[in-house]
Amino acid sequence: MTEQPPSTARSRIIRYEVPGRDPQALFARPGLEQLQAIADRMHPAPPISAHIGLEIVRVADGDVVMTAQPDESHYNPIGAVHGGFFATLLDSACGCAVHSTLPAGVGYTSLEIKVAFLRPITADTGTVTAHGWVTKRGRSASFAEADIRDAEGRVLATATSTCLILTPRQAGEATNPG
Amino acid sequence: MTEQPPSTARSRIIRYEVPGRDPQALFARPGLEQLQAIADRMHPAPPISAHIGLEIVRVADGDVVMTAQPDESHYNPIGAVHGGFFATLLDSACGCAVHSTLPAGVGYTSLEIKVAFLRPITADTGTVTAHGWVTKRGRSASFAEADIRDAEGRVLATATSTCLILTPRQAGEATNPG
Amino acid sequence: MTEQPPSTARSRIIRYEVPGRDPQALFARPGLEQLQAIADRMHPAPPISAHIGLEIVRVADGDVVMTAQPDESHYNPIGAVHGGFFATLLDSACGCAVHSTLPAGVGYTSLEIKVAFLRPITADTGTVTAHGWVTKRGRSASFAEADIRDAEGRVLATATSTCLILTPRQAGEATNPG
Amino acid sequence: MTEQPPSTARSRIIRYEVPGRDPQALFARPGLEQLQAIADRMHPAPPISAHIGLEIVRVADGDVVMTAQPDESHYNPIGAVHGGFFATLLDSACGCAVHSTLPAGVGYTSLEIKVAFLRPITADTGTVTAHGWVTKRGRSASFAEADIRDAEGRVLATATSTCLILTPRQAGEATNPG
Repeated sequence: MTEQPPSTARSRIIRYEVPGRDPQALFARPGLEQLQAIADRMHPAPPISAHIGLEIVRVADGDVVMTAQPDESHYNPIGAVHGGFFATLLDSACGCAVHSTLPAGVGYTSLEIKVAFLRPITADTGTVTAHGWVTKRGRSASFAEADIRDAEGRVLATATSTCLILTPRQAGEATNPG
Repeated sequence: MTEQPPSTARSRIIRYEVPGRDPQALFARPGLEQLQAIADRMHPAPPISAHIGLEIVRVADGDVVMTAQPDESHYNPIGAVHGGFFATLLDSACGCAVHSTLPAGVGYTSLEIKVAFLRPITADTGTVTAHGWVTKRGRSASFAEADIRDAEGRVLATATSTCLILTPRQAGEATNPG
Repeated sequence: MTEQPPSTARSRIIRYEVPGRDPQALFARPGLEQLQAIADRMHPAPPISAHIGLEIVRVADGDVVMTAQPDESHYNPIGAVHGGFFATLLDSACGCAVHSTLPAGVGYTSLEIKVAFLRPITADTGTVTAHGWVTKRGRSASFAEADIRDAEGRVLATATSTCLILTPRQAGEATNPG
Repeated sequence: MTEQPPSTARSRIIRYEVPGRDPQALFARPGLEQLQAIADRMHPAPPISAHIGLEIVRVADGDVVMTAQPDESHYNPIGAVHGGFFATLLDSACGCAVHSTLPAGVGYTSLEIKVAFLRPITADTGTVTAHGWVTKRGRSASFAEADIRDAEGRVLATATSTCLILTPRQAGEATNPG
């Protein structure tokens, strides 16, 4: 005795490119150049991007704009987009904002993020835009914030994050989540 | 001139069931009963589960255990699992812990979550286990915490979250992310 | 055998007025009017203000500006102002921003706050200014953010907070920290 | 025309010792030894302690217990202890837990803290106890958590914090809030 009719079954294909295993390669270029290469599709986007339809729209020193595509595959049990979609997008926006400030050979990793869920997202919301910016850049740690807005500019969520800055040696060892 | 050889292209199929559009149906049963039905596969898991291979292992009053499957599709640019995987799992664990405490007709929604990234996850980490528990249950708001551990029991991440408790009328309107 | 010469002993007097025990009295007026009365010194500031020399400079609907006075009594072991000074000021700024949006008879209480410590404060920093603003006002919960700046406008800390909105009946019972 | 009778005026004296200006002196000893000296009153407690009546009860490697004394001087406008009291105590508990893990010559500073306000504190609550523990120690960053309990063991608040670990050279420059 099913509680949902069979027609509710759906599927979606996630297509991605496996990144190289060498973190030093990622951080070999200045961060801004590296992110611009992804925005220009000269370099593959990270795999996680495929889950939320994430694209880098614009990147500047300490400031990044991205879009993402909510769909029904991101739904929680009550038919709205799960907090994980918000967090994935905001962690990317904060992390890329920090990455954009780094010189060649310097890496970073996310230490923590806090996300505030201001308004719901559904598939009907359409493309959402995340803006991430650095609030303080440091030699050992940098701070970033981000928000998500809908097409009308309403703020749907905000986040604050702390990133650890990695020296060339540390960058070669980094495998943290950010 | 590609920077990654073609053989790095991958794909993964996300299969899910679209949840009903009526939040009151979700909250019609006591939360514990509803979550147990998902754990027992008598009720479809929410779509977001498919993105991270999330399964409810055990649910009790105010306490839930889940597993998730990291794979290369969750990778960030440096070849480790993105913070969004952590946050999706931890937001589910906190939210379900709160949900498990609710009587029939009462709903909830996540207001915020903070995630601390203690150790990296890669595809080699294998199945990870999230534990979520309620730290304070209230009539208007409840607090929950969660952690993620690997097979050896090492803590990979922790989270704290605040949920708003919704009266029957509010639950009918709820579409927030949690 | 003392490790610090006696001349390092200091004292400071905290002067305050004990607030009434009836939360409904606090919320009897619209929040903006109540906060303006404190800013105008027609109503005593809450006791906690005395610990950090907090004064409300300006209050508008969903937006508040305050100052505070760091001194050596706020020092941590390494001779800089303790995180508790930052958090006290930022929790006040977020809470007052939410309070300023409330009609008569409606109360609030802080559920949580996250504070990011961007730059140190010392007694030499002088008066610091906190700005708090509401990012989303809701019937059941509101979100606020705040920052602290020095006289040169440099951001010293940021915070995000969630507040529970209390109905007239709940406001009469509220004794939470915010 | 006063809104509060004159008898509500109170004062409290904060007595403290100004710490030395040399952070390297603080971190010259192993953290556990340094904190034990404060617990044993062989070394003065940091000034901030005086504001909340903070005392170190017990310190072990990565684990610390403290008490604090709420009084009416900590009240917010609604006659309960302000969130700043909670945050000051929890930031101390998290920071000391991290400090206790450090070898001689290594310092730390707090990057951020999130505090969840579970239950109110009033002067009638009496002495409250904070427990802080390290969840992950790292060479560059460490994570800690803490809670506050009343005499009956009820959890009043919880916190999670991230600290930056400072090399001997960095420790000499550190003046951050933690």
